[in-house]
Amino acid sequence: MPAHHSIKRRIQFHDTDMAGVVHFSNYFRMMEEVEHAFFRSLDLSIVMTHEALEIGWPRVAASCEYFGPLKFEDEVELIMQVTKVGEKSFNYEVEFQWEGRRVALGKMTSVCCEMLDTGMRSIPIPPGIRKKLEAE
Amino acid sequence: MPAHHSIKRRIQFHDTDMAGVVHFSNYFRMMEEVEHAFFRSLDLSIVMTHEALEIGWPRVAASCEYFGPLKFEDEVELIMQVTKVGEKSFNYEVEFQWEGRRVALGKMTSVCCEMLDTGMRSIPIPPGIRKKLEAE
Amino acid sequence: MPAHHSIKRRIQFHDTDMAGVVHFSNYFRMMEEVEHAFFRSLDLSIVMTHEALEIGWPRVAASCEYFGPLKFEDEVELIMQVTKVGEKSFNYEVEFQWEGRRVALGKMTSVCCEMLDTGMRSIPIPPGIRKKLEAE
Amino acid sequence: MPAHHSIKRRIQFHDTDMAGVVHFSNYFRMMEEVEHAFFRSLDLSIVMTHEALEIGWPRVAASCEYFGPLKFEDEVELIMQVTKVGEKSFNYEVEFQWEGRRVALGKMTSVCCEMLDTGMRSIPIPPGIRKKLEAE
Repeated sequence: MPAHHSIKRRIQFHDTDMAGVVHFSNYFRMMEEVEHAFFRSLDLSIVMTHEALEIGWPRVAASCEYFGPLKFEDEVELIMQVTKVGEKSFNYEVEFQWEGRRVALGKMTSVCCEMLDTGMRSIPIPPGIRKKLEAE
Repeated sequence: MPAHHSIKRRIQFHDTDMAGVVHFSNYFRMMEEVEHAFFRSLDLSIVMTHEALEIGWPRVAASCEYFGPLKFEDEVELIMQVTKVGEKSFNYEVEFQWEGRRVALGKMTSVCCEMLDTGMRSIPIPPGIRKKLEAE
Repeated sequence: MPAHHSIKRRIQFHDTDMAGVVHFSNYFRMMEEVEHAFFRSLDLSIVMTHEALEIGWPRVAASCEYFGPLKFEDEVELIMQVTKVGEKSFNYEVEFQWEGRRVALGKMTSVCCEMLDTGMRSIPIPPGIRKKLEAE
Repeated sequence: MPAHHSIKRRIQFHDTDMAGVVHFSNYFRMMEEVEHAFFRSLDLSIVMTHEALEIGWPRVAASCEYFGPLKFEDEVELIMQVTKVGEKSFNYEVEFQWEGRRVALGKMTSVCCEMLDTGMRSIPIPPGIRKKLEAE
């Protein structure tokens, strides 16, 4: 079974905009929140040193489909599922559920990179991390 | 020629994150900034009353591909182009250029809606607005 | 004993800036988060209808002193205390604690207003709300 | 005459909240925007190497008073004035003007720090920078 993780998240006042609903850009922040909670659940961090390498995960693609609004004080469930672990990248989806209904679906592609003083360089996902991403 | 618009935008300190670059969610805010500047250039507003209808444009899909980072104080050019005007929705792309190179490409789909007290209802794009979206 | 409330809050990646710490503006958002949690704990909401009045609480003053940084994944404790309930306004403080140390202290003044279509108008805090703000 | 600087800034949709006005935390971001524009106007950057020192300016205090709302598409004038240059810190105020009226007044205290790998250390403001902060 592919790795997955879910959290509940209360919608805050500062998440909303003048249309009275959560601003569409904030869904991407919530996607990241559940992703990082997923990493913590695996005893990893999105910012980590692994076998002497400084590792980061820059995004190469992010998308979201919106099916209905989220409002102030709604408690949304963020259900993350890893959909693909490639050689150097991994993909995941986040389903946004409110009162049992899917209100949005986000997708993300991140690349495993070694962080150097001079910039960053994509590297194969280290086996110890790959194993955790592939299954729980 | 399809309708298009571009603006220059300085990267602010609060746009960055601890990786030292613009947070990926803020590209979606910049996409919206050039979209709204485009509407203003057509003497429209994203929040408008048109022939007695209260009209809004909720997003149904948003995506972005990232080709390279943007940093504090970079001056980025946001080049928006309408790619499709449907019966009730329109699509646009935003190219993010920095020093002449494409660093990101965003895509958005928004739906024309009548804003009612009870919620909102998708409607055909009014002809006067459609004409402006289709060409300059 | 004056009304008070506290919550724990994980620092998110998007809370940080390129200095590697939480952006100073985000402390104000955290102040609001604990304020709204406090209101919920009293069976109130910051956006509420009370005895047929639509009530809101615009801020007239906000301040924060910073004693040390907060970083990604820190779990901060936000300790809110009502410091004054005036005729039409109330004041509160939020202490930011991390690992038992005070890292910031925020202060806020909000005014009780009736929200009208034409704008808003300050009103005396209704007795039922006042009682809850004054003590638990 | 003390150093000062002003910019015009369009209110963006993502600056607003469900109350239909600019979220109070975003005034602090605008204060920073004019501060950084002021630094650029002096050929400085808030993130700079000065005579081989890596210098940063963490905030120790920030406050804002709100006299009236700002709304979507308002063009606000941000008028920054240095109010004090101390040995290691400097203070400034930002007046927010809209249509010639003061709608908010922000105040900030920042400390000059040497940024080290192990953290940061407050230092006397270097004379070359002090001179620019004190007058134009």
